Amino acid sequence: MTRRLEVGDLISHDVRREAAAWIGTGDEDAVARVAWSVLIEPGDGVAGEAIARFGPRAALDRVTTAPRGADIGNALDRWASRWDAGLVRDAIAAARRRQIRLLLPGDAEWPVGLDDLGPHAPVCLWVRGEAEALAHGLSAGLVGARAATGYGEHVATDLASALADDDVVIVSGAAYGIDGAAHRGAMRVGGRTVAFVAGGADRVYPAGHAHLLQQITERGAVVAECPPGTTPTRWRFLSRNRLIAAVSAATVVVEAGGRSGSINTAGHAAALGRPLGAVPGPVTSSTSAGCHRLLREYDAICITSAGDVRELLGAGPDPQPLAYEAPETIRLADALSRRRARTVDELARRSGLAPADVVAALGLMALAGSAEAREDGWVSAT
Amino acid sequence: MTRRLEVGDLISHDVRREAAAWIGTGDEDAVARVAWSVLIEPGDGVAGEAIARFGPRAALDRVTTAPRGADIGNALDRWASRWDAGLVRDAIAAARRRQIRLLLPGDAEWPVGLDDLGPHAPVCLWVRGEAEALAHGLSAGLVGARAATGYGEHVATDLASALADDDVVIVSGAAYGIDGAAHRGAMRVGGRTVAFVAGGADRVYPAGHAHLLQQITERGAVVAECPPGTTPTRWRFLSRNRLIAAVSAATVVVEAGGRSGSINTAGHAAALGRPLGAVPGPVTSSTSAGCHRLLREYDAICITSAGDVRELLGAGPDPQPLAYEAPETIRLADALSRRRARTVDELARRSGLAPADVVAALGLMALAGSAEAREDGWVSAT
Repeated sequence: MTRRLEVGDLISHDVRREAAAWIGTGDEDAVARVAWSVLIEPGDGVAGEAIARFGPRAALDRVTTAPRGADIGNALDRWASRWDAGLVRDAIAAARRRQIRLLLPGDAEWPVGLDDLGPHAPVCLWVRGEAEALAHGLSAGLVGARAATGYGEHVATDLASALADDDVVIVSGAAYGIDGAAHRGAMRVGGRTVAFVAGGADRVYPAGHAHLLQQITERGAVVAECPPGTTPTRWRFLSRNRLIAAVSAATVVVEAGGRSGSINTAGHAAALGRPLGAVPGPVTSSTSAGCHRLLREYDAICITSAGDVRELLGAGPDPQPLAYEAPETIRLADALSRRRARTVDELARRSGLAPADVVAALGLMALAGSAEAREDGWVSAT
Repeated sequence: MTRRLEVGDLISHDVRREAAAWIGTGDEDAVARVAWSVLIEPGDGVAGEAIARFGPRAALDRVTTAPRGADIGNALDRWASRWDAGLVRDAIAAARRRQIRLLLPGDAEWPVGLDDLGPHAPVCLWVRGEAEALAHGLSAGLVGARAATGYGEHVATDLASALADDDVVIVSGAAYGIDGAAHRGAMRVGGRTVAFVAGGADRVYPAGHAHLLQQITERGAVVAECPPGTTPTRWRFLSRNRLIAAVSAATVVVEAGGRSGSINTAGHAAALGRPLGAVPGPVTSSTSAGCHRLLREYDAICITSAGDVRELLGAGPDPQPLAYEAPETIRLADALSRRRARTVDELARRSGLAPADVVAALGLMALAGSAEAREDGWVSAT
């Protein structure tokens, strides 16, 4: 992994031509952001800081000339496996084909709430539909369990309908259960809704939501920070949650198990100082355990009606941030297969981690019994 | 109402003899407390202050000699209609007959938590069973709706069983619904439980809880601050709630409508600085609306398990006091009948209010349309 990287190998002549046809400009920083989006995993703070400091295009130059041992030099090990103009060109071609638009920081439609993520903000957004509402409207994040109960879906639908009827944009993650109910509730009354997805904006995920995703692009937008074609992984789901929290004036968890992804979204909201609400449910329902935990331990506000959410959108508390899981382990677990052994290099490419970090994380996982070394590589043991 | 009152007309020779046979002592202050208990409505702060200042017996002397216009002189108008040695003697006779014991401040079994009520503390307690647990054990108040759901009763029973199994005394109000479930939950595991009732300790109220009340006297105690024979009224229910809050290290509302008596108990707990918990339920259930209101507006702690209650018993927050209803109106509404017209004097006796206060409150109620003047007196128009 010590070969010399050149910017031309990432942003080739082909890439420039495709990009110009897509976004109607040859602006070097715009194209560089697209390349960065292909290169990094969501929320890569080193990339974010380099871009903020040098600008997107100059930051790429710095990457190719940085001495090893510097922060950016180490990060290079993470990015090298995706340093490929073919990947960038394919992403742009897919975007053109699927009518996915590019949204950049500073654009009129850019949701300014994302800027509060600092170096962890997305480098660009890939958008199917109209995301304008996010930049100029009042947004509420309604999230929750995939394995929701009838009660949870009923409450999510009702809250979304009442809020959307009041011109609030309903933001969620297009998952089964609460997310789907929230999007549907908004659309039922002709309201606006935006789905932030963990994979590419062109991916139909989950499969059963093909029709819902199509409807959302017509009534709002499906938005991704990963390029078209990207598969959703657990890390990307968790990272996506921070976008929902950041673009929403307040986030409400409608139903959630004790250790669900919704708790993670709530943690992001708390870390961003965004007001956080939780809908209570029966204490005998494990699907409400996460909400009750938010009420007990994280000063979430008890939400029982759309009026309560409106109050939350107006002003709110500043709850304590939650503790996060180690990101390397989550990303590596995503990259490992239970059946097919994978080499360290392949795992580095899939996870977007530096090979050295992959080796370190594999060691820990092997000790914990969650990864296993085979002759031809590593497999998941969970 | 300007006749001269004499202590001898309240504590007659008969009363002294009955009292000595009952409590085994002729102690003048003890007998005076019994007389006070007959004389006043629960929580009468003027009586409480006079007793604290002069002692129970001397306070009665003061009452008979106080000039009109002094606080105690005005209060006299409230007490005059019950200044009757026959009532005191009957109460004591009923207590002897029903094996009701007298408990006085300073007694070994006196629940010291009551002292935090200051001048509003009960002047004495009438006890069927053993209240010792209250003085020496850790107590949790579990209260809630009479019209409870199966969910609420299930949670109340489970919480009570788990806590009682851990030697926590379960305090409640012997009502249908949550209260009954809490007492039963404690007894199911052989634990201790105490019921504070709004009427006399000899009254079987509610009628369907005759067997339950009997069981409670065998496994703990049924406790009243009103003398035997007293009927429960709305005012006495609300006043009784302050006793549950005061003797409990923490109070938990398991299920409650938006304007229920349990909210009032919670308000007392808050006013006393006692930790307050609320069990969440479906937001679609009106029977949980009161609990959610406590979580949202009064910083109640979200309770999902017996472990959560144990944590609450250890230490807790200091929530905001709730607003109370005007006591005069509640007491007068209790005293009015919808069918039988009652005179001001009769209403004064039934409500324990001064005739002048009755007239003032009737005027307000007439304006509000909730009371109506007839030729022969007043009726309720609600």
